[in-house]
Amino acid sequence: MQHHFVPQQYYRTIGTHPVALTVNDGDTVTIECVDAHGNDKQDHQITQPGNPMSGPIALNGVQPGDVIAITIMSIIPLRTHGWSYPTLAGNVVDPEYVTALPFAPGASIPKEYWDVDEQTHRVSSRGTHGKTVTVPYAPMIGCFGVAPARGEALSTATSSKNGGNMDYKHFTTGCTVFFPVAVEGALFFVGDGHLVQGCGEIGGTGVESAIAVTCRLTKARMNSITWPRAEDAVYLYAVGNARPLDQALQHATSELHRMLIECGADATTAAVLMSQAVEYDIGNVFDPAYTIACKIKKSLLRDHGLKDSFIS
Amino acid sequence: MQHHFVPQQYYRTIGTHPVALTVNDGDTVTIECVDAHGNDKQDHQITQPGNPMSGPIALNGVQPGDVIAITIMSIIPLRTHGWSYPTLAGNVVDPEYVTALPFAPGASIPKEYWDVDEQTHRVSSRGTHGKTVTVPYAPMIGCFGVAPARGEALSTATSSKNGGNMDYKHFTTGCTVFFPVAVEGALFFVGDGHLVQGCGEIGGTGVESAIAVTCRLTKARMNSITWPRAEDAVYLYAVGNARPLDQALQHATSELHRMLIECGADATTAAVLMSQAVEYDIGNVFDPAYTIACKIKKSLLRDHGLKDSFIS
Amino acid sequence: MQHHFVPQQYYRTIGTHPVALTVNDGDTVTIECVDAHGNDKQDHQITQPGNPMSGPIALNGVQPGDVIAITIMSIIPLRTHGWSYPTLAGNVVDPEYVTALPFAPGASIPKEYWDVDEQTHRVSSRGTHGKTVTVPYAPMIGCFGVAPARGEALSTATSSKNGGNMDYKHFTTGCTVFFPVAVEGALFFVGDGHLVQGCGEIGGTGVESAIAVTCRLTKARMNSITWPRAEDAVYLYAVGNARPLDQALQHATSELHRMLIECGADATTAAVLMSQAVEYDIGNVFDPAYTIACKIKKSLLRDHGLKDSFIS
Amino acid sequence: MQHHFVPQQYYRTIGTHPVALTVNDGDTVTIECVDAHGNDKQDHQITQPGNPMSGPIALNGVQPGDVIAITIMSIIPLRTHGWSYPTLAGNVVDPEYVTALPFAPGASIPKEYWDVDEQTHRVSSRGTHGKTVTVPYAPMIGCFGVAPARGEALSTATSSKNGGNMDYKHFTTGCTVFFPVAVEGALFFVGDGHLVQGCGEIGGTGVESAIAVTCRLTKARMNSITWPRAEDAVYLYAVGNARPLDQALQHATSELHRMLIECGADATTAAVLMSQAVEYDIGNVFDPAYTIACKIKKSLLRDHGLKDSFIS
Repeated sequence: MQHHFVPQQYYRTIGTHPVALTVNDGDTVTIECVDAHGNDKQDHQITQPGNPMSGPIALNGVQPGDVIAITIMSIIPLRTHGWSYPTLAGNVVDPEYVTALPFAPGASIPKEYWDVDEQTHRVSSRGTHGKTVTVPYAPMIGCFGVAPARGEALSTATSSKNGGNMDYKHFTTGCTVFFPVAVEGALFFVGDGHLVQGCGEIGGTGVESAIAVTCRLTKARMNSITWPRAEDAVYLYAVGNARPLDQALQHATSELHRMLIECGADATTAAVLMSQAVEYDIGNVFDPAYTIACKIKKSLLRDHGLKDSFIS
Repeated sequence: MQHHFVPQQYYRTIGTHPVALTVNDGDTVTIECVDAHGNDKQDHQITQPGNPMSGPIALNGVQPGDVIAITIMSIIPLRTHGWSYPTLAGNVVDPEYVTALPFAPGASIPKEYWDVDEQTHRVSSRGTHGKTVTVPYAPMIGCFGVAPARGEALSTATSSKNGGNMDYKHFTTGCTVFFPVAVEGALFFVGDGHLVQGCGEIGGTGVESAIAVTCRLTKARMNSITWPRAEDAVYLYAVGNARPLDQALQHATSELHRMLIECGADATTAAVLMSQAVEYDIGNVFDPAYTIACKIKKSLLRDHGLKDSFIS
Repeated sequence: MQHHFVPQQYYRTIGTHPVALTVNDGDTVTIECVDAHGNDKQDHQITQPGNPMSGPIALNGVQPGDVIAITIMSIIPLRTHGWSYPTLAGNVVDPEYVTALPFAPGASIPKEYWDVDEQTHRVSSRGTHGKTVTVPYAPMIGCFGVAPARGEALSTATSSKNGGNMDYKHFTTGCTVFFPVAVEGALFFVGDGHLVQGCGEIGGTGVESAIAVTCRLTKARMNSITWPRAEDAVYLYAVGNARPLDQALQHATSELHRMLIECGADATTAAVLMSQAVEYDIGNVFDPAYTIACKIKKSLLRDHGLKDSFIS
Repeated sequence: MQHHFVPQQYYRTIGTHPVALTVNDGDTVTIECVDAHGNDKQDHQITQPGNPMSGPIALNGVQPGDVIAITIMSIIPLRTHGWSYPTLAGNVVDPEYVTALPFAPGASIPKEYWDVDEQTHRVSSRGTHGKTVTVPYAPMIGCFGVAPARGEALSTATSSKNGGNMDYKHFTTGCTVFFPVAVEGALFFVGDGHLVQGCGEIGGTGVESAIAVTCRLTKARMNSITWPRAEDAVYLYAVGNARPLDQALQHATSELHRMLIECGADATTAAVLMSQAVEYDIGNVFDPAYTIACKIKKSLLRDHGLKDSFIS
C-alpha cells in the first residue's frame, strides 16, 4: 500500500512519541519533511529549528529485538533552493586555526542560499558569502532512525544505536538501512534533507531543504543487530555513532564482523577478508556523536560464496 | 637520471641518518625494500622486524621550509607471496568484542601467507587460517617520509608531520606525495610494501611483501606546508596523522583549507566548497598515530577556475 | 519544610516525566533510592536494573535558564551491605590487556558483596572473588540531575549538560551542585548510591547500595550556566560530561573560566590563575559519556578579592 | 658519590645522544637546567627554545629491560623569577570558546613574569597581563626521562613510554620515578623546571625558570615495566602518556594493575581494590601526548599485606 504522510506535528527528539501513522509490512510511504530550521516547501517556518522530524510511523508487527528495513526509493526536494553555513565548524579544524575561519564558531552565522538546476543536475550557491560554488546535485537524508531503547528520547542533533543525525551521504535513493527495533512498531522518524553534502557535514550543514522521502518499510529477515546496517547495489555497511571517531570505528568494525559471520563466514575468514578489503566512510563529525561506516563490496562476498544481501 | 638503490643498512626510525644516496631534482630512483619483518626478495630475514626503511636518499638543493614531491612511478613486488595477520587488531573493535577475535591481541599471532596471480591480478590467501580469501591485487606503500624537524628520529611504527607509517592505500602508482622538508636534502625513506591492504590496516598488516618502488624526487613549487599533501589524476589530498582520529581529521581539514587558498580560493569560498564537496579516507588505525586524508576532486577546482595541480 | 519521598515509580531516563513531588525554594527532602540494579533496603528487586532514579521532584518557581542548587546534607545507607563487579571494565585498560582481566568484559559478571562496619567506618568485601578488601567508608551519589532541554529523556547510564551518571566521588555530603534548568520546576532525579567508589568507577560499579539522600533544593543566585558546577568547603568545581575525556576537559575548563569571570576576574587574570592553580578530577570513565571536574580552591579566590561562593 | 653537572650542550630530543656524564648506582647528581626557552640563571638565552634538556647521564650497569629509579632530592630555582603565557591553550577549551581567550592560540603570545618570595613561599605574577596573581611556590620538573627504544629520538615537547614532557606536578622533591631502560646506561635527561604549575599545564606553561635538580640514580629492584611508575611518601603511581586522555588512562590503569600484582595481589583482588580506591591525576594536556597518572595509597597496600614500596 502507498501512503502519503504530512505531519501535523514535528519532533526534535527521536523517542516513543504517539504514533502518527501505522503501516503494514512492505508498505510504501511518501513523507514530507521540513528543513533543519523547520521551514517548509514555501520556506515558511512552521516549527522550531533543530532537525524537526516527521513521524513517528509504526510498522505493524515488529517487536523489540526485530530489525526494521527502510528502503529509500526517492528523495524529492520540495523547493528548488536550500541553504548552508558558509564556514567550517570549529571542531573540524585545529584549535589554532579556529581564528582563521570565515565566521567565529558558535556565533550567529549567516546563511548562504543555493539553487538546484534540474537541467544540469547541479546545485549552485548564490555567492553572497564567497564566490559562487557549484557542485553535483546529490540529495540525501541527514537524520532518520527509530525509537531508542529504555524509553530514551534523543535529540535529533545527535545519533546512537537507533540512528539519528548521521549525515552520511550514502543514505540516499537505492539504499536500504536496517535499524534495531527497541519498541513495538519500531517508530520511524525522518527529516533533515540535504540537496548535497560533503563528507562529515563539516560546515555544520549540507545544503538544507524541505524534501519528500519515499521509502518502503519492511520487517527485515535478520537477527538482532546492535548498530545500524545498510546495503545498496554495491556495498554492505555497518555504522557506528559515537565520539571520538576511534570509538565509532570500533562499533562499525565489530558490527561488520558480526554481519559477515551472518553472511556465512567463520570468524577468522571474516577477519582475513576485512583486513584486506574494508573501506571506511565518515558521516557527521559536527554533532555530539560522530558517525563512521565500515563497508565491504557485495561482489567480494559473492566471490567467496557468502550471502551478500539481506533484502529479498 | 635513473638510480637503482639497494640498501646496505636499514633503519627503523625516520631521522637524520647518514645519507645513503644523493640525487638531483627530477631524478628517478628504483628502491629495493624488504618487508615489514625485514625479509627480502628470497624471504630471508636480513634485518630486524618493524618496518625497516630503505634510505635516506637526499635531494640536492632542498632546504628546511621547502617541500619535496615524491612521484610514485611503479611498485613492483620482489616476491610473488606476502603475509598478513589473520585477525583484527584489539583497538579497532569494541573492548567487549576483543575476546571474540580469532587471536588475542598482542599475543604471538601466526602468519597467513598469500600469493599473487599475475594473470588475474588477484591476491589469494593460502587458507591456513580461515578459508582462502581472494582480493584484487593493489600494491601500495605503507611507510614513507622524510626526516622530521628538531632532530627527531621517529619509529617507523608511527607517523607525524613528516609522513611515516600512514598505510594509506591511495599512496600508490600515479600518486605524488608532498612532504615538508625539515633538514637539508629532505632525507627520504621508504618501505613496508603491501600487495594489497584494506582501509585502516585493521588487522595490523596489509599483505606484506618485499617491493621495488620507483619514484621521482623533485623540489615542489609549493609554499611551506604543515602536513603531507598529495595529488593523483583525480584528487588533491591533505593528510593528518594523530590520535584520536578526531585530531587527525582536524589536521587534514585545516591543511586542505590552506591548500585551496593556495589554489586561488578565498577563505570563505574554500569553506563553502569544502563543506559540500570533501571526502575523507582513513589510513592506518592500528599504530600510535592514526591517519586521515581529506580530499577534493581536481575537476571541481577546475570548474571554479582554481589551480588544480602542484605538478606542472 | 522537610519532605520525605519514597517513590511509587522509578525512571531509567532523566526527562520530563510527571512530577512526583513539588517543593518550595529552600525545602529539604529525604529521598529513598534503590540501588543500581533496582534493589531496595531489604535487597528485594522492586524495579528494573540500570540506575533507576527517584523523582522527579519539581522546585516551585524555577524556569528554563535558571540554575537549581542541590545541597547534599546527608547520605545514609539503607542497608549495611552493597555489591561491586570484581573486575576492571574493558574500556579502561589497553586492548591488549583485556584478556588479562579477571572476567571478560560484557560477559555476565558475578557480584562481590561488601559490608559496612559503622564502628570503623570501613567497607569490606566478603572475599568471594579475590581476597577480602577493606577501604574507608565514603558514601556518594552516582547519578543525579535535572530534566534536559528540548524534551530529551536521557538514559541514566550516561551524563550530559543536565548531570546524570557522573560517578564523581566529591558529590557527597557537604557539596552543593548546580544544574542548568531546562524545564519549569527543573525536575530533579537522584539514585545510584555508592558506599564508596574509586575515581573513574573503573570496575563499572562503586559499592552499590540503597541509600537515603537528604538534600536542600534552592534557586541559585547565579546566571545561566552551560555545564554542572559545584562547591564544597574547599573548592569550586566545573564539570564536563562527554567522550573522549579530552572533550569533557574542554567543557569543564571553559565552564570554570566563565565561572571565575562571574566571580569578578577579568578573562586574562582568570586564565593566568587557572594555568597555575587548577586541579582536575576524573569521574565516570565507564559509561558512554565520561566526566571530568576542573576545580580551584576557594581560598585562592578569596586571596585575590574574588567571590568564592554562590551559596549565600 | 655526589656529582655536579653543568651541560656544555643541550638537547631538544630525548634519544641515544653521546653520554655527557656517567655515574654509579646510588650516586647523586646536581644538574643545572635552563628554562623552557633556553634561558639560564641570568636569564640569558644560551640555547634554542623548546624544552632543552640537560644530559644524557648514563648509569653504570643498567641494561635494556632494567628499570632506573630517579629520586628527586631537591629542586632549587636558579633565578628568583619565571614566566608564563597569560592565556589558556586552544585545545583545552571548547572550539566555540577559542575566540573568547585572551590571546589567539598559536599566535605570538607575550610573557607574563613572576617572582618568588622565599619568605612567604609564594610566587606572584607582575600583573602586566591581568591583575597580579599569587599562588603557593611548588617547584617541579616538567620534562625528564630516558632514551627510548629502537633508536628513537623524541621531541621534548611530547612524552611516551620513556617519560618526557609529562608536566605532572607530583614529580617533585621526595618522589622517585621509575623509567624502563631501553639502552645501555639508560641515558637520563632532565629540564623544563617550573616554579609552580596547575594540573594540565593548560596555559601551555608553568612558571618557567632555570633550576638545579638534585637526584639520585639507582638501578631499581623491579621487573621490567612498560610505562613510567613512581612513588612518594603517600602513593604508588603508574603513568600513561598518549592522546586522547582515554588512551593515556588505559595505559596507566593497566600498568597499575600489573604493579599491584608485583606487590603481591592476585589479578582479581587487584581489580577489586583498584575499583574502589584508585585516584587519577592529569598531567600535560597541552602537547602532542597527554599524561594521566593512576595512583593508590601505600597505606592501603600495607593494610592488605601487600608490598608498598620499590625503594629498599
